[in-house]
Amino acid sequence: MSTSPFVAALVDELGGRCRVVTDGDLLTSYRQDMATVVPGGMPAAAVLPRTTADVATALRLASSYGVPVVPRGAGTSLAGGASAVDGCLVLSTEAMNAIRSLDPLDRVAVVEAGVVNAHLDRAAAEHGLMYAPDPSSFEISTIGGNVATNAGGLRCVKYGVTRQSVLGLEVVLADGRVVETGAATTKNVAGYDLTGLLVGSEGTLGVITAATVRLHRRPVVPPATIVAAFGSLEAAGAAVAQIVAAGPDVLLMELLDGTTLRSIDTWKRMGLSGIEAMLVVQVDGRLPDDAALVATLCTAAGAVDEPAVSDDPAEADELLAIRRLAYPAAERLGQCLVEDVGVPVSRLPEMIRRVEAAAARHGVTVLTVAHAGDGNLHPTFVFDHGATGIPDPVAAAADEVFAAALELGGTITGEHGVGILKRDWLERQVGPDAMALQRAVKAAFDPLGLMNPGKVLA
Amino acid sequence: MSTSPFVAALVDELGGRCRVVTDGDLLTSYRQDMATVVPGGMPAAAVLPRTTADVATALRLASSYGVPVVPRGAGTSLAGGASAVDGCLVLSTEAMNAIRSLDPLDRVAVVEAGVVNAHLDRAAAEHGLMYAPDPSSFEISTIGGNVATNAGGLRCVKYGVTRQSVLGLEVVLADGRVVETGAATTKNVAGYDLTGLLVGSEGTLGVITAATVRLHRRPVVPPATIVAAFGSLEAAGAAVAQIVAAGPDVLLMELLDGTTLRSIDTWKRMGLSGIEAMLVVQVDGRLPDDAALVATLCTAAGAVDEPAVSDDPAEADELLAIRRLAYPAAERLGQCLVEDVGVPVSRLPEMIRRVEAAAARHGVTVLTVAHAGDGNLHPTFVFDHGATGIPDPVAAAADEVFAAALELGGTITGEHGVGILKRDWLERQVGPDAMALQRAVKAAFDPLGLMNPGKVLA
Repeated sequence: MSTSPFVAALVDELGGRCRVVTDGDLLTSYRQDMATVVPGGMPAAAVLPRTTADVATALRLASSYGVPVVPRGAGTSLAGGASAVDGCLVLSTEAMNAIRSLDPLDRVAVVEAGVVNAHLDRAAAEHGLMYAPDPSSFEISTIGGNVATNAGGLRCVKYGVTRQSVLGLEVVLADGRVVETGAATTKNVAGYDLTGLLVGSEGTLGVITAATVRLHRRPVVPPATIVAAFGSLEAAGAAVAQIVAAGPDVLLMELLDGTTLRSIDTWKRMGLSGIEAMLVVQVDGRLPDDAALVATLCTAAGAVDEPAVSDDPAEADELLAIRRLAYPAAERLGQCLVEDVGVPVSRLPEMIRRVEAAAARHGVTVLTVAHAGDGNLHPTFVFDHGATGIPDPVAAAADEVFAAALELGGTITGEHGVGILKRDWLERQVGPDAMALQRAVKAAFDPLGLMNPGKVLA
Repeated sequence: MSTSPFVAALVDELGGRCRVVTDGDLLTSYRQDMATVVPGGMPAAAVLPRTTADVATALRLASSYGVPVVPRGAGTSLAGGASAVDGCLVLSTEAMNAIRSLDPLDRVAVVEAGVVNAHLDRAAAEHGLMYAPDPSSFEISTIGGNVATNAGGLRCVKYGVTRQSVLGLEVVLADGRVVETGAATTKNVAGYDLTGLLVGSEGTLGVITAATVRLHRRPVVPPATIVAAFGSLEAAGAAVAQIVAAGPDVLLMELLDGTTLRSIDTWKRMGLSGIEAMLVVQVDGRLPDDAALVATLCTAAGAVDEPAVSDDPAEADELLAIRRLAYPAAERLGQCLVEDVGVPVSRLPEMIRRVEAAAARHGVTVLTVAHAGDGNLHPTFVFDHGATGIPDPVAAAADEVFAAALELGGTITGEHGVGILKRDWLERQVGPDAMALQRAVKAAFDPLGLMNPGKVLA
């Protein structure tokens, strides 16, 4: 394969400064992210800049040669957000992994895009602080990717999503200009909120190279954990609605459906037979009345046994272990399409019924877990490992799930992003006029359309 | 004065549906907002639409006649954000004051732009809920204006600013198209965050006609209130930094400087002599240890007496009364320019010193109150009622205050917005490249530049 003038220029300008990948075999690993159903194109090169200046150089070159750029963090997208296109430059931020500063007094950190979420959280923990947003991928995904997708997580029922933790950004625009947005203050209304606009823009407006983030106090008193089992999803959904309406200080509220529980039980033999739904709730440990309230509401909604309540961290870890097994248990069954719809919390039971009906109608297997306190569901469709692309019945069932979410006043994606997989659905959610605004915003940032082409906007 | 073809068309299409003001005397009241130092131009007409369709009609007409539009809520801007320009159409949302829905289960309300903040909060209170953002103008300012300026307030140290309470918007674009953004869910990553972009856009991107907002549980247990007096601002500033670092569950943390306290004492004789700073803190009443912690930290930082601590609502109101007197006390002294800088909390004492030094250097009177928990200061410059415009020494002192805020890593405006008054400072904060992006975003929404011209962007 002959080297293109762009790749030659890239190697020439950056080869001595950072890693530039041009070998075809090595490039293969940059084609896909964790949305394995999206095949991904073949990149012309991949670059792993060490500095913001390196990123600026790479983007300036790509822009001048008209080469599309696909930014990439750890590649954990479940929507194809980091899927490569043929002939593109994959720009991975993984080598930009410095925590530039961490100010315990103001509870603000400035971190480079390649810092792994859990690494930042552990650095904060040394000062009694925490980085609140905790997507399930927190041990491997990066802050840059988290910011680019406005990642959610388990704790965001209390602390909000990634956008609520980002105060400012360092961004390299498509033409190589470096822009800083926001301020290190919690209040700032100087001009349009470019920070918030870039959060969740999925690499289509520029490359996020660093973020100024808020940290929260790490709770000193361990949370109280409540686990309740139910004989029906309806009963568990009713419990969720009652708890949300009663308003205890919930840190985490996760719901697992019967299919998920059975797949875990088949694997780990945890004695979960006969349980059709499980609710795992954590509340602020300083408020024992809130823990008692949650348990009482679960019982009133029809929990099959007395809910387990514990304020012991080791016991809490055991209780949470079932939740952590949900994805691995699904993956044992086959290839997974992890969906990500959101509805108002009161519509959660209805939404779960719709998911089950859609799966039954098309004869496909679905396991649902939900960040129930946020009304955010992950119906996970399972199909043969051998399949390439999404099998038609799965696509048809997923389509019905999206339609149901919108009908119930919700969203087609609560935390994974649009990527490639939801692209054709975006306009159905936001309508043609908002789509036109989205395109105009895209053009304002990236007039040549080179940044992560084909993501978010078709 | 002869009627212009635009005004004639406006009266023709909307005169039978809603109030259209064309009388010169009556129009005078639509020239200015509460930034009285900004004179404001003479509108060609004012319209008070009753429905979103009326707004769309008005904007379509303005667009086709090339008439600039100045949207207006209650006109409480302190930055000239609602100041009229000659020949414009003032579009007041005050007649759109319906709460379209309030769902206590999902804690979501859909409210029209003209709903007064306090009215929404009281409607929420009937269900044990509250609308958290509480700018000082909450009894008179409207949700539309609050959203357009991303208003802050006292409670936002715990609950965040207006942007954190807005889930979705109904907006009429410059050409009359009606767009809905966001969703009724707490998580939503479907496309760019147009909702967040419109919040704080000060009427320059479109007219916000309705907002879908989150409500919070209204605390059942009354907060604990702590009031501490200090012999120096430095001591009070140190107390603030210590409290923020220790991390109790603070609902409100307000700081008053000596000049403010003396102006209140001269008026109300409250025995405040010798006090150079006062701190008023409220914490969650369910956590008495947090209240004790705040009192202890105030004493350790040098409070002159034992801090007053109360969990009695009537007593708390008395303790808070001093804070509420701060603005009226300043207004008794003369015409006010209320500034609005923000810094990281640890820089608060330094920032207050800089404000005092700037005022002393230019021989002007300044009273400072601060939402201390957010690092948001309101240095209020007082000058003769007779003055037209901002006197030079005040302008020079304010200029130094802005420069100091930026030097300390802060912002020129924490919650009031850029409006007209901070327009020339915006680029100094955000830099030329971010300014170019702001202009491109503006052009994407409002290609003819008719929406609230001269605000935010010069």
